[in-house]
Amino acid sequence: MIKIAIDAMGGDNGASIVVEAVKKFLKDHDDVEFYVVGKKEELSDLGSAATIIDAKDVMGMEEGALDVLRKKESSMIKAIDLVSNNTCDGVVSCGGTGAFLTGATIKLKLIPGVLRAALVSPFPTLDGKGVTMLDIGANNENKPEHLVQFAHMGAIYSKCAMGVKDPKVYLLSNGAEDKKGSPVGKEANHLLREEKDICFEGNIEARYVLTGQADVVVCEGYPGNVMLKTIEGTANLFNAKIKGAFKKNFFTKIGYLFAKPGFDDFKKDLDYKKYGGAMLAGINGIAVKAHGNSNSYSFYHAIRVCYNMIKNDMVNKIKEAFVSE
Amino acid sequence: MIKIAIDAMGGDNGASIVVEAVKKFLKDHDDVEFYVVGKKEELSDLGSAATIIDAKDVMGMEEGALDVLRKKESSMIKAIDLVSNNTCDGVVSCGGTGAFLTGATIKLKLIPGVLRAALVSPFPTLDGKGVTMLDIGANNENKPEHLVQFAHMGAIYSKCAMGVKDPKVYLLSNGAEDKKGSPVGKEANHLLREEKDICFEGNIEARYVLTGQADVVVCEGYPGNVMLKTIEGTANLFNAKIKGAFKKNFFTKIGYLFAKPGFDDFKKDLDYKKYGGAMLAGINGIAVKAHGNSNSYSFYHAIRVCYNMIKNDMVNKIKEAFVSE
Repeated sequence: MIKIAIDAMGGDNGASIVVEAVKKFLKDHDDVEFYVVGKKEELSDLGSAATIIDAKDVMGMEEGALDVLRKKESSMIKAIDLVSNNTCDGVVSCGGTGAFLTGATIKLKLIPGVLRAALVSPFPTLDGKGVTMLDIGANNENKPEHLVQFAHMGAIYSKCAMGVKDPKVYLLSNGAEDKKGSPVGKEANHLLREEKDICFEGNIEARYVLTGQADVVVCEGYPGNVMLKTIEGTANLFNAKIKGAFKKNFFTKIGYLFAKPGFDDFKKDLDYKKYGGAMLAGINGIAVKAHGNSNSYSFYHAIRVCYNMIKNDMVNKIKEAFVSE
Repeated sequence: MIKIAIDAMGGDNGASIVVEAVKKFLKDHDDVEFYVVGKKEELSDLGSAATIIDAKDVMGMEEGALDVLRKKESSMIKAIDLVSNNTCDGVVSCGGTGAFLTGATIKLKLIPGVLRAALVSPFPTLDGKGVTMLDIGANNENKPEHLVQFAHMGAIYSKCAMGVKDPKVYLLSNGAEDKKGSPVGKEANHLLREEKDICFEGNIEARYVLTGQADVVVCEGYPGNVMLKTIEGTANLFNAKIKGAFKKNFFTKIGYLFAKPGFDDFKKDLDYKKYGGAMLAGINGIAVKAHGNSNSYSFYHAIRVCYNMIKNDMVNKIKEAFVSE
């Protein structure tokens, strides 16, 4: 039985979307058990479907590292504790990123040999197979050796989660040549060229990341975060403009009715919500951060990420890779 | 008469697209004169429409700073020289970015008081009014005081080129709070809060850059370059998927015929090619870098940027702002 801890509080849309997602996930899977942590009165709809653990405190979206240690009674810390005391195999939260990353790293601890944890997430690509990106914002600044480790963790994620046999790993840069990039990036490129166990293909520019050319894209946390949010912002712009185009007049509305099957595929292919959650890789446990503005559909998919990673034994795979190094 | 120097060589699509763009621009404007530099035999279609200056050498896409100084006979350097010797007011090139930025900075020199030049470009936004971004890749790394100067230059660009009266200036960061961002960004935020002459509104996340919230977004060169290219890559992904959606079957093709007027607006609103060229701000002259893969349409718009900036006396406006500081 797979056991997942859920922090039900702290998201923009309240605990109800979490309850809905958990119930649907239970309907679709018979090998999973949930421990849902939050204000009891907001979780009553769960009935006996999950173990409910009461927590009076909620971690605010902007709480820093010190608050995390202080707020022991928060739903977030209580949920993470369920993994650190081995009750659960993984935890999902839509609370604040900073607090969650700090809490998960302190409580679950880095895997021996791992210098730093990284946020990993897949993204849809033009060719449909998707690309795994890390670090997309767990760290502001990285050292070259961190990026080398991210490359290994990204390759493991790509194998486990995306089923890619020999993932092609690239390093985000401002040019394809080895000499391009930040000082950290240049040194990382140099170090990655020496790595035997991963298929490192060199630098990649942000414009080619979503083509499908790369299976894994390693980036420094800050540019990674910029890339992630730029994709989101550009996607929002295009989606709004597409909607506007079909709503222009009576005929374009008719056009939508005809074109709908094509655009249903479009939506399915580029469904960022389906990618639901980013995983914090490199710690002793599966910790998935859902978007703060998740609805029940995207929270469901964040749970799915956690579930798949537990099933694929991601933590042990990273352990093996880093111990043998 | 506005005099513009054109480096006709070095683009992916040869000199013919340049010739076509110049001819069309002359047809549309009667107050402009062109000095086109390149291999004479490839420019013969220009006839007597422009002054043709023969250059045997072409700057390669990957030439570095040292090559630039050495290749005195290249079309690029010869075109820049036309501005430094006051024959022309501005120069447009689709040659390699690195070489062009180095060449323009060395030959045209920084405006007194300006610490560093920055690449500036407007982008389309959801609300239609556009946003000015800088630095989008002239520098890999910046100091906080560079970013403060970029804010001033961006505000001047926004006033001159976009007609915004009191441009709202934001700083790209990984969170809206002042304490977010890289060490350089945090310090820049602090310094910008002290500036009286610009309307600094604080940090902005990449996801909100294309909404229209900001008139000017200041960013460090490397994340700026990532943002720019991510927008491009995401736009390519969406455009390909939209095409695919309409091509799915017979009915979706019919749908396109009905929806076309809406999508014509869509194309017009999000036409990145129309934004044609990025300008190098902070030097004594207007230097516009067109995309390496420009077609005649986007090269035309790169010329338009150069023309407008000359007409708006951008260089003198920056001079005034930086002398009075």
